[in-house]
Amino acid sequence: MSDLEALLDQAARPAIAVHGGAGTAASDDPEPYRRGVSRAAEAGLRVLLAGGSALDAAQAACVVLEDDPAFNAGTGSCLTSSGEVEMDASCMDGETLRAGAVACVKTVKNPIVLSRRVLDDTPHVLLAGPGADAFARECGLPEHPNALFITPRALARFQELRARAEREGADAVRRGIGTVGALTVDARGHVAACTSTGGTPFKRPGRVGDTPIIGGGTYANDKEGAASSTGLGEAIVKVSMARAACFRMGEGMSPLQAARFAVGLLRERAQGDGGIICAGPDGRLGWSFNTPRMTRALFRPGMTAPAAAI
Amino acid sequence: MSDLEALLDQAARPAIAVHGGAGTAASDDPEPYRRGVSRAAEAGLRVLLAGGSALDAAQAACVVLEDDPAFNAGTGSCLTSSGEVEMDASCMDGETLRAGAVACVKTVKNPIVLSRRVLDDTPHVLLAGPGADAFARECGLPEHPNALFITPRALARFQELRARAEREGADAVRRGIGTVGALTVDARGHVAACTSTGGTPFKRPGRVGDTPIIGGGTYANDKEGAASSTGLGEAIVKVSMARAACFRMGEGMSPLQAARFAVGLLRERAQGDGGIICAGPDGRLGWSFNTPRMTRALFRPGMTAPAAAI
Repeated sequence: MSDLEALLDQAARPAIAVHGGAGTAASDDPEPYRRGVSRAAEAGLRVLLAGGSALDAAQAACVVLEDDPAFNAGTGSCLTSSGEVEMDASCMDGETLRAGAVACVKTVKNPIVLSRRVLDDTPHVLLAGPGADAFARECGLPEHPNALFITPRALARFQELRARAEREGADAVRRGIGTVGALTVDARGHVAACTSTGGTPFKRPGRVGDTPIIGGGTYANDKEGAASSTGLGEAIVKVSMARAACFRMGEGMSPLQAARFAVGLLRERAQGDGGIICAGPDGRLGWSFNTPRMTRALFRPGMTAPAAAI
Repeated sequence: MSDLEALLDQAARPAIAVHGGAGTAASDDPEPYRRGVSRAAEAGLRVLLAGGSALDAAQAACVVLEDDPAFNAGTGSCLTSSGEVEMDASCMDGETLRAGAVACVKTVKNPIVLSRRVLDDTPHVLLAGPGADAFARECGLPEHPNALFITPRALARFQELRARAEREGADAVRRGIGTVGALTVDARGHVAACTSTGGTPFKRPGRVGDTPIIGGGTYANDKEGAASSTGLGEAIVKVSMARAACFRMGEGMSPLQAARFAVGLLRERAQGDGGIICAGPDGRLGWSFNTPRMTRALFRPGMTAPAAAI
């Protein structure tokens, strides 16, 4: 077991694990990604140490990642084939199984915050499309113009993909698997999970991946653990990847074993690439991926800084 | 074991089970519901006996239920609080784990057919909102004006709920749990599942329940079985009800045991009411519900007519 794996496998609470997606290209400078996930882990742990709930902490970490233009979620999201940003997010509280999710939102600066409002303020789990943006206005979340999400890098990528799509067809260029996620375990063993994404680059408007699917991209249950997936969303949904990892933790697998099991399932049953982070109610953490990279970090009290890897 | 349970528990292929939702009021005349699920089961078995795939057969049964104004799916769907119809549907093929789903569609006569087009003609699993209706036009599915879905009965119910919502608040009247679904097992042991709904009466525009959530409302995996859920969608999503039932079948539970397990999970972990139908690759079937009624039917070769119950 490597040093990092030994660190993951410690049953020590509170604890936080975050990921910045499995889609980071091997050619990208790793530093902005390492920095981003470290800052997110710090923000989440700060909330836990201040007595915030597991869900508050996971949300705080996720907001940092959404606001960081390096990641494909919130600001920095990929563009659809129409040249707009359409974002998905979900959150789940392991103590109560309460969950909230939004799909295809266009005008909310932090989709994870809106998913939390669905959890807190409605009897629903998922709001999609214009109805979700309308709910944001009812909640008093200010309208964030779609153009403000679009970074120069995302725009350049869109223009390149549009040119390629004209030659090769749109479905041929719809690859790329960026997502962000955060899992937390509080001092009492309550777990929570948050996941957010801009989706696949050049995706068809209306396309929804695994991120807002409770059981696919996100799951949390104090009796089992919590999980946040990243990768080829369609394949993740087909194997209910986050749910499958939590089932296995409930049956006694460690978070590290459950993460490896889930990635194996993704590959074997759905020919998918991606990764997952897992957390157990005892504070053990785990991650696994079959992509070249997955930006990730873990943090616990007693560590001088988050342990980040890419 | 009752006669009907003994009939369910026979390992005989091909086989079909359908449901017309767990929301039928005890005061409703049961005959239109019995007739509807029987006609759907007959339509599905006909496709199987003619050599059609499990997925084709489940879809055919689901189309009959969508077109039947007695059921809350397709024509006969409940209205949202805006007075429109917004429908969700999903389908899954147990042999390949291919899946397709649509959410919040407004202008497609048979949402289950559009979900099948997502499965067949795109790399995606879920399309939501205006993007899903736009995809229907690309597929050549004619625009079906929203007003044509609205039956006099659905309109009367909407008007009654609107009046009550003015007094009691919108969330107080958002109850009702109608869905339709069909499961098939072909002669070789391939399974498929289809589920379709108009959602909760007077729902908030954009609200999505369990029906288009792969793992929530629908799941199919030849190695385990197939399941279609109905009931309080938010609670079903929280426990990944269809996925949980399939997991248990994969571990050796019969479809009848798995259905009972899943309804227990729904109640215990998410305080939810609803029901589920399950099918194993050996042709055994199962169903369970904790609501006063769940319209349902099963049919196999050798039976003179579908066995329907409410």
